[in-house]
Amino acid sequence: MSQTDEQQIRQVIDTWLQASRDGDLATVMSLMTEDVVFLTPGNPPMSRGDLESRSKAMTGKVAIEGKPEIKEITVAGDVAICWNHLEITITPLDGSSSPVKRAGNVLSVFRKGPDGKWRIWRDANMLGASS
Amino acid sequence: MSQTDEQQIRQVIDTWLQASRDGDLATVMSLMTEDVVFLTPGNPPMSRGDLESRSKAMTGKVAIEGKPEIKEITVAGDVAICWNHLEITITPLDGSSSPVKRAGNVLSVFRKGPDGKWRIWRDANMLGASS
Repeated sequence: MSQTDEQQIRQVIDTWLQASRDGDLATVMSLMTEDVVFLTPGNPPMSRGDLESRSKAMTGKVAIEGKPEIKEITVAGDVAICWNHLEITITPLDGSSSPVKRAGNVLSVFRKGPDGKWRIWRDANMLGASS
Repeated sequence: MSQTDEQQIRQVIDTWLQASRDGDLATVMSLMTEDVVFLTPGNPPMSRGDLESRSKAMTGKVAIEGKPEIKEITVAGDVAICWNHLEITITPLDGSSSPVKRAGNVLSVFRKGPDGKWRIWRDANMLGASS
């Protein structure tokens, strides 16, 4: 049974969050395009290399647990737009401080590669401190 | 001479900013789809009606000057993704306080309607206080 494009994209998001939780950076990197751009409030755009460096710096220091609530996925050819409301809990592994929760909307654009796989290509992450 | 899709989308953005500056809400409303969603950090999603009420409340109170720097426009069928770095200056018309500048990235998705016109459909606005 082959998955629809929407199912494949949901799978990419689930795999991303699982790999983030597991600290499996290689898997996370495989789920984004070479020319991916991550946009956030108050920071310069982040490239693939920027995200990789930042993730490496956090490896072993924090556990990141993400809970997605996918509002919609719209597929147009080899492009797909996803609106997701994401909750993230970041827990310092050395117990030095309490877990921090962040929540907010994420607008992502996925592209389907020549290999038929969907990857994140543009990502606008509006997560802020959560009450 | 007919415009390309990209030129039409640039025109929509220019018209939007000009109409915002002029307080021409009818024109602004004509440039978004009925089911538009505006996402921002720290706020609930805004619908077309939310944006209209909010804009009406500001009419005659502030002048809004926007300066776009379009980073890329990617057209895929009747969907287009635009990454824009936007600077906004908000000036109270009664001179009660100094102009406020905000700047940041905007990731927008446009849709082409059955009438052949492009309109904003999803918008992730990450503008924050600008130094």
